[in-house]
Amino acid sequence: MKLSNTNLGTIRVNNLDKTYPAQDILLQTGQLVQYGTGIYAYNNIPLLVRQNVENIIRKILNKYGCVEILLPTLQPENLWKESGRWDKYIEDGTMLVVKSDKGNMCMAPTAEEAVTDFVRGRVGSYKNLPFTIYQIGEKYRNEIRTRGYLLRGKSFPMMDAYSFDKDIEGLQKSYENVKQAYLEIFREMNLDVIPVAADSGAIGGHKSEEFMMISPIGEDTILVDKETGIAFNTEILEREDADEYLKKEYGIQNKNNVEARKTIELGHIFQLGTKYSESMKATYITKEGKEEVLQMGCYGIGISRTVATIYENSVLKDNEGNPCGISLPTCIAPYLLQIIPKIENEEKFNLAKEIYNKLEEKGIDVILDNREQGMLGAKIKDCKMLGTPYMLVIGDKTEPGKFEVENVKTGEKEILSKEELIEKFLKIKNERKYI
Amino acid sequence: MKLSNTNLGTIRVNNLDKTYPAQDILLQTGQLVQYGTGIYAYNNIPLLVRQNVENIIRKILNKYGCVEILLPTLQPENLWKESGRWDKYIEDGTMLVVKSDKGNMCMAPTAEEAVTDFVRGRVGSYKNLPFTIYQIGEKYRNEIRTRGYLLRGKSFPMMDAYSFDKDIEGLQKSYENVKQAYLEIFREMNLDVIPVAADSGAIGGHKSEEFMMISPIGEDTILVDKETGIAFNTEILEREDADEYLKKEYGIQNKNNVEARKTIELGHIFQLGTKYSESMKATYITKEGKEEVLQMGCYGIGISRTVATIYENSVLKDNEGNPCGISLPTCIAPYLLQIIPKIENEEKFNLAKEIYNKLEEKGIDVILDNREQGMLGAKIKDCKMLGTPYMLVIGDKTEPGKFEVENVKTGEKEILSKEELIEKFLKIKNERKYI
Repeated sequence: MKLSNTNLGTIRVNNLDKTYPAQDILLQTGQLVQYGTGIYAYNNIPLLVRQNVENIIRKILNKYGCVEILLPTLQPENLWKESGRWDKYIEDGTMLVVKSDKGNMCMAPTAEEAVTDFVRGRVGSYKNLPFTIYQIGEKYRNEIRTRGYLLRGKSFPMMDAYSFDKDIEGLQKSYENVKQAYLEIFREMNLDVIPVAADSGAIGGHKSEEFMMISPIGEDTILVDKETGIAFNTEILEREDADEYLKKEYGIQNKNNVEARKTIELGHIFQLGTKYSESMKATYITKEGKEEVLQMGCYGIGISRTVATIYENSVLKDNEGNPCGISLPTCIAPYLLQIIPKIENEEKFNLAKEIYNKLEEKGIDVILDNREQGMLGAKIKDCKMLGTPYMLVIGDKTEPGKFEVENVKTGEKEILSKEELIEKFLKIKNERKYI
Repeated sequence: MKLSNTNLGTIRVNNLDKTYPAQDILLQTGQLVQYGTGIYAYNNIPLLVRQNVENIIRKILNKYGCVEILLPTLQPENLWKESGRWDKYIEDGTMLVVKSDKGNMCMAPTAEEAVTDFVRGRVGSYKNLPFTIYQIGEKYRNEIRTRGYLLRGKSFPMMDAYSFDKDIEGLQKSYENVKQAYLEIFREMNLDVIPVAADSGAIGGHKSEEFMMISPIGEDTILVDKETGIAFNTEILEREDADEYLKKEYGIQNKNNVEARKTIELGHIFQLGTKYSESMKATYITKEGKEEVLQMGCYGIGISRTVATIYENSVLKDNEGNPCGISLPTCIAPYLLQIIPKIENEEKFNLAKEIYNKLEEKGIDVILDNREQGMLGAKIKDCKMLGTPYMLVIGDKTEPGKFEVENVKTGEKEILSKEELIEKFLKIKNERKYI
């Protein structure tokens, strides 16, 4: 991508916010544009980070046998009346209602009703079970306590999956399958995410786990046993039999050894059971020819908050520990290298364009900073504003066979020939199995 | 993709609609699910057709130097008050209004306001011009005359691009650049689309062209000169100087030689000029240090109607000329081959799975019909319901080295070894440059 084709000017950022420094950089540099409380546009780079997150999720879920579909965001009232959730959502004020010529509709805050309708009447025999379908789509909520740009907005992209089984044993298997997929998804994105059992699950009834990441931007708290690293929900300590329970369920001997950590919830998996299939009559025919209600599971990953978490996790700090830029990890960065030529030097500018074209030909996405406006120093600073993990400055002194590539995060530099440069980035690219 | 993982059962379709036979197949087989007038969910295959269309558009626009962004669908009222379009859209009833805690909002019917806001105050110098940004996103309209499933819905995906230039000469260049990209996009999808000048463009003022495809499902009419093949807008015949004008502008000698054809509009390109940049004050600084209003162009492609057109264009007919199935073109089909084993024959079923895994390993997306329910005959019919272009039946008589691959559209069959089979589909896959 040539920076001259964007509307991203060289810009200085000032007084970065301490809680969300990456957000502040994105907003100050026009990479995110705010339209109202909890409403944002994505400029190119954060959008491509989001698409990379989506593609990793998509391809790993496909690998685990899940099938992608897409449900409508505009949904008729009657669908929600059927499950009994219309009035509840209206009362608590989170539903964004739309009046159409065909009566009331809503912008979907979630999709259990829509997916149950998608499936019912179309399953038929038990032979067609189980299956897990998912979508990557926008959700809408009249969120009053919006928070930290992409963390909790009025509109946000989510991956939501739904499993359909003939019985509880089947549901448990489908649930475990999605759980394994989730673990691989977060591993692939280099996010250290822990599944934490929600208390409701442990005390019987339907199992449910939250995928939590320890992070200063978190608004949840989990408890971690210092010795074993086992994490669990704070609610467990409120149980009368907490000591005994921790020993029995987790093998934790001493609850004084447990510490609270701030976490952000990136995903959730949940055994729904028959809540929606019963009220909305989603059934199948058993081997014996009887009609039975489907067992459902539901599974979500917050895509925008995953993007936000990746960004805040990628903040660079100066010698005094103050945030001063971003360096996205290579497993997710849309552009691996930023080539910054001194454009006034025609020979060097041509050299930069040659390298850029070579890398693009090989399918390696890189940025060429060919902007007319801005001095070399400002452009070097901009590389840290855009979060590109590697930088190649081509100045007056650069010799054609000796390219100094800098790892923006570590500051490490290496001198490479053109071939070595291509090989290095081809290797990094090929390590990314799903993007 | 394994069909056992979907909710697609073997199903017979009956009494196919004559106007939209593909739509009828998609609805009867649960590949599209209707939720209300103009509101649909996509099952896996049509969704992937849509994603392929999106990716072709995306990658070709990127090649032409356009940069992808994403604007919000939920937009505050004040943005639309500024351009003066809020009241207009409310009056004509096409705006879907949403009441939030922060006042009135709308579900964006179009994005000129949002993109002007995205850009204004961020361009600065003339040195940062020109640029063309685009998004692929959902649009919402309270469409009362919904039509033919994906053709005109209440909610539909669109690609909308916007160019920003310092003067009219620049705008014309940006416009021509997007026009060339469009021609390549439709060529890549094997759609025979003609740019037709809208009359408004021809009589001066701002130029505008519609990308029309001759099709029985079309609701527009264009005139085509039988001799030269030149197409133009019907409005031209209403001009007093029509004869002279046709000669001068198009070299058409005889307007009696012109015939009317039904067409569907898949894209539109438009030189907006300063309509939005003036009312919303989107400016830049000239070389002389003066503040000037930006020149804008806007460009759209209807993604869902492109999907619908591809499907209706892919309908198979029986000997009596009646619609009997779908065969998607290989340039867009999500799955190239459907492998249909007789699953009761364990040896043959294993052979089918081996072929499936081999193809998937090579990155060739194919369907394995491993459904427990359904006889071989029904499954063979289903291949035509799902639109997969090639079929491989593995029955009792299939020998391991002799696979009979059928081109579903032409009925041609060829016997291939495993290696030849893989080579054939690798070649088809690699011909698709952008998906």
